[in-house]
Amino acid sequence: MTDVAALRALLADALPADCLSDDPDDLATYGRDWTKVYAPAPALIAFPRSTAEVAAVLARCDASGIAVVPSGGRTGLAGGAVARDGELVLSLARMRAMGPVDPVALTVHVEAGAVTEAVHQHCAPHGLTWPVDFASKGSSQVGGNIATNAGGVKVIRYGLTRQWVLGLVVVTARGDILRLNGALEKNNTGLDLRQVFIGTEGTLGVITEATLKLTRLPAPQTVLLLGVSDLQAVLALFEAARGGPFTLSAFEFFTDRCLARLQRHRKVRAPFDTPCTHYVLMEVEPRDPDALAAWAARLFEEGLALDGTMSQDGSQAAALWSLREGISESLSATGLPHKNDIALPLAALHAFCAELDALLAARYPDWELCLFGHIGDGNLHVNVMKPDDLPKEEFLAKTHEADHAIFTLVKKYGGSISAEHGIGLLKKDYLAYSRSPAELAIMRSIKRALDPKNLMNPGKIFDL
Amino acid sequence: MTDVAALRALLADALPADCLSDDPDDLATYGRDWTKVYAPAPALIAFPRSTAEVAAVLARCDASGIAVVPSGGRTGLAGGAVARDGELVLSLARMRAMGPVDPVALTVHVEAGAVTEAVHQHCAPHGLTWPVDFASKGSSQVGGNIATNAGGVKVIRYGLTRQWVLGLVVVTARGDILRLNGALEKNNTGLDLRQVFIGTEGTLGVITEATLKLTRLPAPQTVLLLGVSDLQAVLALFEAARGGPFTLSAFEFFTDRCLARLQRHRKVRAPFDTPCTHYVLMEVEPRDPDALAAWAARLFEEGLALDGTMSQDGSQAAALWSLREGISESLSATGLPHKNDIALPLAALHAFCAELDALLAARYPDWELCLFGHIGDGNLHVNVMKPDDLPKEEFLAKTHEADHAIFTLVKKYGGSISAEHGIGLLKKDYLAYSRSPAELAIMRSIKRALDPKNLMNPGKIFDL
Repeated sequence: MTDVAALRALLADALPADCLSDDPDDLATYGRDWTKVYAPAPALIAFPRSTAEVAAVLARCDASGIAVVPSGGRTGLAGGAVARDGELVLSLARMRAMGPVDPVALTVHVEAGAVTEAVHQHCAPHGLTWPVDFASKGSSQVGGNIATNAGGVKVIRYGLTRQWVLGLVVVTARGDILRLNGALEKNNTGLDLRQVFIGTEGTLGVITEATLKLTRLPAPQTVLLLGVSDLQAVLALFEAARGGPFTLSAFEFFTDRCLARLQRHRKVRAPFDTPCTHYVLMEVEPRDPDALAAWAARLFEEGLALDGTMSQDGSQAAALWSLREGISESLSATGLPHKNDIALPLAALHAFCAELDALLAARYPDWELCLFGHIGDGNLHVNVMKPDDLPKEEFLAKTHEADHAIFTLVKKYGGSISAEHGIGLLKKDYLAYSRSPAELAIMRSIKRALDPKNLMNPGKIFDL
Repeated sequence: MTDVAALRALLADALPADCLSDDPDDLATYGRDWTKVYAPAPALIAFPRSTAEVAAVLARCDASGIAVVPSGGRTGLAGGAVARDGELVLSLARMRAMGPVDPVALTVHVEAGAVTEAVHQHCAPHGLTWPVDFASKGSSQVGGNIATNAGGVKVIRYGLTRQWVLGLVVVTARGDILRLNGALEKNNTGLDLRQVFIGTEGTLGVITEATLKLTRLPAPQTVLLLGVSDLQAVLALFEAARGGPFTLSAFEFFTDRCLARLQRHRKVRAPFDTPCTHYVLMEVEPRDPDALAAWAARLFEEGLALDGTMSQDGSQAAALWSLREGISESLSATGLPHKNDIALPLAALHAFCAELDALLAARYPDWELCLFGHIGDGNLHVNVMKPDDLPKEEFLAKTHEADHAIFTLVKKYGGSISAEHGIGLLKKDYLAYSRSPAELAIMRSIKRALDPKNLMNPGKIFDL
């Protein structure tokens, strides 16, 4: 048990008293993320207002052996920001400043607590955007996005968060401030330490500021929703889209079961009359609207698509997107889903899904499989729903066993057990399905080199 | 002195005898790179044919404390592939296989010895390319490109090599084979070890295979060569180009002094009549040729450009490119250049160049400054020419002193002492101008964690 009074005393000359809280509501709020399955139990929440204050806090924690959990928008889905063992939570919520947009260099320097959507709004008047975009952008913060290398719905066009970070300011476990890469596009001077902090979920240091790389806002986009016969047809459609007369901005997929639960929850109409088992949502930036229409017409002539619709304006595009983006919420509202966020090489997707179907049919015939995801990136959200007559505890025990079977398949096909959600607490028991013993040994040795006392977000990703 | 017979015996069961050479020509060829300033003195050259053979070689070298220098196309400009102290050179020259192009996933798996241009030719029939492109592409190899995070003339559009690597196979100092990330676009499972090996110049392991990410071949490009009045006008033109009706593929710059030496060496005509002090080469993929012509016409109306020419076909485009790409060779052919490859934040370029001019004018008034580079990336090649009447040794001593003054300026403006060439041997004495003591301590600790005996390309980037 951490002594809260002693911890307050330790931090007294690092932060003013009103930047610390042990209010029970704050402990509950800032001690968890969206996973909701872990009971939060931090000792204290710190709200530093600058990189210097973060450094002062971490130097004192290092000296006294206090574990620290960095905390952003807490929208993570793997427990990476959970504090359940008397840690100090270091929230970036009071570090939200955004500097001026540089319209020539295409950069903006922001503090780590800046909210993703606020960055978008800050850049939009310049015709620019930070193309990191996903459903939780109204709450997620830049620092958390970078610490988790966030993905989302535009990865096929723009890549992961990693590609959109020029400079980082990081505070290490012992309180050193690293100013990494500044605002440089090119800097080949040995190991790029930015990359070591991106995606390591705050286990090696705390990101406090970032120089973000921006890109032009795209021209108005067109959304197509297409119904096809099976997964093979989804992949054939993707192959056709690779050669289409447009820039592909998104290529998403969901099954009829996902749509049925969305319709039940949101009372929306089907997008078109023909019932299909597999749906594809494509967002494209057409070079020429007529060429796009001709390309789409050929899909029907060639039997690649069974039915479909194309947005004529922004509100129709948004309505089609809501069918895809409402799925996760609809599954939770209509039942108890068990979620996995996996990735496969595209070439292995069909064989993997066939084996997954067979596995579930053989062992768990009464589980409903709701499959959707960013299939253009090889990224599937594999959701299985608890059968109504199965007790929750029994279902959870069985999903644990099923995960081992699913991840064995993932490994067989060269996939990832966590495409974009990260490892955190939720997946760490399964990490060896995606990373070899030699890789894990190197990961641990780098953790020990940077955080010898194991105080930075301890117990996340792996135990030492 | 390494005992060559003992080294051959050590490797006898790792490689057939015809995969080893101590022929003096081979020692001289494979012991150096394009820097040419270091005397090569390796003990032996190994030409393994597979990742397994590389692992067998490295395991034996680890056991016996033999230092290893990985060797690709040897086109580096920083001495990163130089072996001058009895090392084993491990050449990837016999590992050039290229797998089938996957036109849906947009990937190709190749061995590290595949030559950059061969990869381009392998992918082109599919309408695809690996967009890593620079003057030495006919000799440079994929593994070396990745180990040095190569840049080039298309970075402004495509980014550095780092962005175009999906998977890596790496052999560690102790001979472990790491298969990192496979063919996955998304894989958030803790520290991305690919990033640790990219750009570290073979000091942490040997890259033996890679899964490359491909992109569509661009549509035919248009090249504009424009003359402007000064550096400020170059930057104003860049700002205009950011908003132009096209995709910007390259934005390069050179001065009249560079052009004069190119004309002297290659006997080419001036690109247009008006003599200008500053020249910009832009390559663009126009959305609409008429809009591009109108945009270019406005540059002259607004006085942004003084004169210029625009390519009407591929051969004219190539002729304009040759003016830019021939500079480096022309400087060496017409005198003795001392080269620096630096980067600045774009916002600092003007102030930096003004101070650089003042510095050189005050201390070295008879040195000719030939400035060119990838200015859209903030990347300047700063070349100073030896005055005819200054002895070479005296010039080299003075450039050493001048480098400290130049790098002090680079540091003041938040720049990099090596934008794309790397550190190798040539720049390691200056590394502290770009990396802080805390950064260097972490870089050393990671080196020690991965290569505790300091056998992987020892003495490159920094000494332990």
